[in-house]
Amino acid sequence: MAIQVGVIMGSTSDWETMKHACAILDELGIAYEKRVVSAHRTPDLMFQYAETAVERGLKVIIAGAGGAAHLPGMVAAKTELPVIGVPVKSSNLNGLDSLLSIVQMPGGVPVATVAIGTAGAVNAGLLAAQILATNDAELLAKLRRRRAATREQVLASASELV
Amino acid sequence: MAIQVGVIMGSTSDWETMKHACAILDELGIAYEKRVVSAHRTPDLMFQYAETAVERGLKVIIAGAGGAAHLPGMVAAKTELPVIGVPVKSSNLNGLDSLLSIVQMPGGVPVATVAIGTAGAVNAGLLAAQILATNDAELLAKLRRRRAATREQVLASASELV
Amino acid sequence: MAIQVGVIMGSTSDWETMKHACAILDELGIAYEKRVVSAHRTPDLMFQYAETAVERGLKVIIAGAGGAAHLPGMVAAKTELPVIGVPVKSSNLNGLDSLLSIVQMPGGVPVATVAIGTAGAVNAGLLAAQILATNDAELLAKLRRRRAATREQVLASASELV
Amino acid sequence: MAIQVGVIMGSTSDWETMKHACAILDELGIAYEKRVVSAHRTPDLMFQYAETAVERGLKVIIAGAGGAAHLPGMVAAKTELPVIGVPVKSSNLNGLDSLLSIVQMPGGVPVATVAIGTAGAVNAGLLAAQILATNDAELLAKLRRRRAATREQVLASASELV
Amino acid sequence: MAIQVGVIMGSTSDWETMKHACAILDELGIAYEKRVVSAHRTPDLMFQYAETAVERGLKVIIAGAGGAAHLPGMVAAKTELPVIGVPVKSSNLNGLDSLLSIVQMPGGVPVATVAIGTAGAVNAGLLAAQILATNDAELLAKLRRRRAATREQVLASASELV
Amino acid sequence: MAIQVGVIMGSTSDWETMKHACAILDELGIAYEKRVVSAHRTPDLMFQYAETAVERGLKVIIAGAGGAAHLPGMVAAKTELPVIGVPVKSSNLNGLDSLLSIVQMPGGVPVATVAIGTAGAVNAGLLAAQILATNDAELLAKLRRRRAATREQVLASASELV
Amino acid sequence: MAIQVGVIMGSTSDWETMKHACAILDELGIAYEKRVVSAHRTPDLMFQYAETAVERGLKVIIAGAGGAAHLPGMVAAKTELPVIGVPVKSSNLNGLDSLLSIVQMPGGVPVATVAIGTAGAVNAGLLAAQILATNDAELLAKLRRRRAATREQVLASASELV
Amino acid sequence: MAIQVGVIMGSTSDWETMKHACAILDELGIAYEKRVVSAHRTPDLMFQYAETAVERGLKVIIAGAGGAAHLPGMVAAKTELPVIGVPVKSSNLNGLDSLLSIVQMPGGVPVATVAIGTAGAVNAGLLAAQILATNDAELLAKLRRRRAATREQVLASASELV
Repeated sequence: MAIQVGVIMGSTSDWETMKHACAILDELGIAYEKRVVSAHRTPDLMFQYAETAVERGLKVIIAGAGGAAHLPGMVAAKTELPVIGVPVKSSNLNGLDSLLSIVQMPGGVPVATVAIGTAGAVNAGLLAAQILATNDAELLAKLRRRRAATREQVLASASELV
Repeated sequence: MAIQVGVIMGSTSDWETMKHACAILDELGIAYEKRVVSAHRTPDLMFQYAETAVERGLKVIIAGAGGAAHLPGMVAAKTELPVIGVPVKSSNLNGLDSLLSIVQMPGGVPVATVAIGTAGAVNAGLLAAQILATNDAELLAKLRRRRAATREQVLASASELV
Repeated sequence: MAIQVGVIMGSTSDWETMKHACAILDELGIAYEKRVVSAHRTPDLMFQYAETAVERGLKVIIAGAGGAAHLPGMVAAKTELPVIGVPVKSSNLNGLDSLLSIVQMPGGVPVATVAIGTAGAVNAGLLAAQILATNDAELLAKLRRRRAATREQVLASASELV
Repeated sequence: MAIQVGVIMGSTSDWETMKHACAILDELGIAYEKRVVSAHRTPDLMFQYAETAVERGLKVIIAGAGGAAHLPGMVAAKTELPVIGVPVKSSNLNGLDSLLSIVQMPGGVPVATVAIGTAGAVNAGLLAAQILATNDAELLAKLRRRRAATREQVLASASELV
Repeated sequence: MAIQVGVIMGSTSDWETMKHACAILDELGIAYEKRVVSAHRTPDLMFQYAETAVERGLKVIIAGAGGAAHLPGMVAAKTELPVIGVPVKSSNLNGLDSLLSIVQMPGGVPVATVAIGTAGAVNAGLLAAQILATNDAELLAKLRRRRAATREQVLASASELV
Repeated sequence: MAIQVGVIMGSTSDWETMKHACAILDELGIAYEKRVVSAHRTPDLMFQYAETAVERGLKVIIAGAGGAAHLPGMVAAKTELPVIGVPVKSSNLNGLDSLLSIVQMPGGVPVATVAIGTAGAVNAGLLAAQILATNDAELLAKLRRRRAATREQVLASASELV
Repeated sequence: MAIQVGVIMGSTSDWETMKHACAILDELGIAYEKRVVSAHRTPDLMFQYAETAVERGLKVIIAGAGGAAHLPGMVAAKTELPVIGVPVKSSNLNGLDSLLSIVQMPGGVPVATVAIGTAGAVNAGLLAAQILATNDAELLAKLRRRRAATREQVLASASELV
Repeated sequence: MAIQVGVIMGSTSDWETMKHACAILDELGIAYEKRVVSAHRTPDLMFQYAETAVERGLKVIIAGAGGAAHLPGMVAAKTELPVIGVPVKSSNLNGLDSLLSIVQMPGGVPVATVAIGTAGAVNAGLLAAQILATNDAELLAKLRRRRAATREQVLASASELV
């Protein structure tokens, strides 16, 4: 199966967060590649990764980074693919710096930003799936079944409030 | 041509911001509908809008709101389509409340959040186009030409620094 | 005794906070129901819960949620009952996102917002009681006795400053 | 008709904001009194106002203040009536100081906090009405009609997006 | 020796912070009293404490509180003595709410605000001493000797950088 | 009459704010000197000013500055006199930077910080007076009369709420 | 004279800020070039600019940008020259986003960050001069004379406080 | 070898952070001195240190401090050498106060500010080296080799994402 999603992150320390995006893609049967691509330490690799993404068949890129988080925005500057940015929680400012560095892009180069940290990584996986599902009825059905299951879990949870 | 993008906003006062998303869709020749749908004043309409979005053929929803901005997240809770959230600048907290209310979604229901205000609205239009372009080579080519034109503008701007 | 207060929360993980609201209601002898109702995972249940609240005899709803906390505001959009919002402390932004998502409601749909976290949950229980006490002299007297007891505790605490 | 709501504010400069609460009470036919009561400049008046509120027949107090906004919380410390706090926009910190000073009350003394500024004042009036309507079916019906009218306005607003 | 400084705090839990103010007063031989006085739980005691402070011979009041920290400002509203406010670190917002609630006083009623937490409590004790020393040459000399000793400690600390 | 208060500020542009402190001192008949003393542009003057303050008979120093506002804290490091810091509103961060730069002093060197901007300058003048009044019964009486007058103004203001 | 400093900015709209850096370089007689180089719109130009900076004889680069300000950090990732980052004031968040995007660089790739806005641009010019002056005694002397002149201005400004 | 860099910090507790700057200087073979110099506890030492820095042969000063962090800016006010400021993480506000106190310098006196905490200290060391390398080709080559090594580490890290 062709790889459709690229999951990249600025540092191996981001993996604790970003693995939650990969877990969603695994669960939904979406083929992906994962890689450390650092905006600041491997800028040329970053550009090459972004430039070749379309021709390599990727449909969506998920990029996670923390602090002065430039990876998602710079990848977005080098490809027309949708880029999803995950603000990784930073050690000092709790990810507020990561969030603002990713979301406040100037007009012309969007980054689809999700929540800080683990919830954001989960949602990055789901958002990538939603984008692919705009042209994949089977994947759309999977997403619907996933939501239905989540709903049932909530409905069944009343007994836990003790 | 079938309508592919729904552009909704919580109030007519959001139009000053959201019209920039529509201008991008117009420029790229993407058919869209626009509408005021208020999470707090027309909640049933909001749910109905979201529930019927897939069957009406929409591929992407762009939702703008300010303050306690619940529209993008609640629409996302009622559809599996990708939902792009635009934080409209609020009168007191400059849109920081709008941004946090939109982006900090719990795991399970993503909102693709863009920048506060006008730049965000522009990018919401472009992100919708990028999502559609994952399955539309012609649109992808248009996006590339648009970027090339933007690049030329920057390259030509040196003479303006006086 | 008829149930007068509905205590709802977005997730079972909010129970650690929201149980403090229930403890106050228990202490004051106010009948209540408690339930997980998620704005994003069970939106239809949320609407149904809010729509039927008056006819089921509820007088006040207490809703706790964290992050992009849409539950209190959306319930308030679907009922004319007073809705008390408790911002649950979030893992990354310490509940500032929860607070702004709950309190910054647009004109037309109020949410009576209390403090972030445990203190807020305690006060949500007390505020619900104060609302009920506007028409219940006995409950008002209970609230007065509770305050008097609290006052005595403070007066007796000087010896603890060692 | 007996006065049911007391509307107080820390300074005459707060009236620009607080008049929106009074407008709602006027619209709904709720009798109220309005007064400048300053926590810092007339502390004794503030205590006397709060202490006598129940015996004077008030059911709800709306208190607006800005900056180090102590009025709502201190009134709440001196009465068991529900106290609604309106954070008035401050000149330097945009009302963030007002909001935190009002909402972050310790467990034991709740203040029902609404949004910063005008929207908050409108909602303070509506919240007071909702509290009174828990024991006044006619007022509840008025609130429903008001919401229905607001809903119609939104539904009719599509033509304004030009 | 007559008591010159009153050290009050909103809760026994503030003692961990406020004891550092008392330690400074002890070190400098300044007579003081300490007491829990809660703005919200013992408002009448607070007013009585502030009103009688001058006649009881106090020269300075140090007041510590957290969250919606009203104690310093309300005491300042009831006495012309200098009031020093110590923002106690709050559990959710790290004392930013405490700081803004204390420092942002309206024109007319000053509170001499110091840093959040322990450093602030230490400095509250020193500031009280500085105020007393404006009319006490011996105390001024003590403060000078204290600073000289601190300076020596720093000068001797180079060897610790290993 | 001997000069008792030194009013200094980092720049002539701070005068718009700091003149409010001087107006209070004028009103209360307190002799003062005023001067531009810049921490960053005239550091030696600053040190000399602070070092000679006691011998020149000053009792209190009021220092206003904005942005990275080092003047109050550095003066406090060079004198044992009470130093009152006024955070001047900055052009970009609304004085939040000024406030934190002034108030967050380490244990050992207090700065008595007041509110951002004009209200803070007014209160700096009043706080200086309160400090002087700890040893000046006549000045204390003046402060009491001033407060009484302010109280009367508030009591008379009800008619302005129209 | 060889060009020693490159002044770049993300957009022509940044020129209003960045011209203050150029004015300093002009004043000090330092040869520089200026150019719009956008991280997001001309990423390849940005990389080429940074990569060739050393060989073209530049000694320091000054880069100004606003919002999700990636230009300074990305240029720093592509050259070993010192890069000075100027956070341009953004329209919504007052430059806090610009500041955090520039200053919070990960270990390995420093950006010498200065203040938000005009003051920062002035200081970027001065900092570039200070760096050059570490090996240019004449320039160092110029900087000293400039400071002395500034000091005289402050000393002469007392008469302006009226 | 002559000492080229002075590393100073406000307190021994800052050493945990600042040692990372020294480690970089050690690694690159740059001679430095290190010392505790407190703006508030040893102001005269601070001025003397800064005033004599040029004549003692220093080329760059690295200054770390937390809270109301005045050390970098005050040193910068007393020398024309480039001063690099490291915001040390503070106990209550996570270093946001340190950052703003250091970076928001007025026009005329720059401080080259780096990130909060450990990453900032590492980068302070590297920035000092970059400044020295503007006139030291061998050091520039070392910096290039260091970057190349870092790049190789990232490229080799893919296997760690498990």
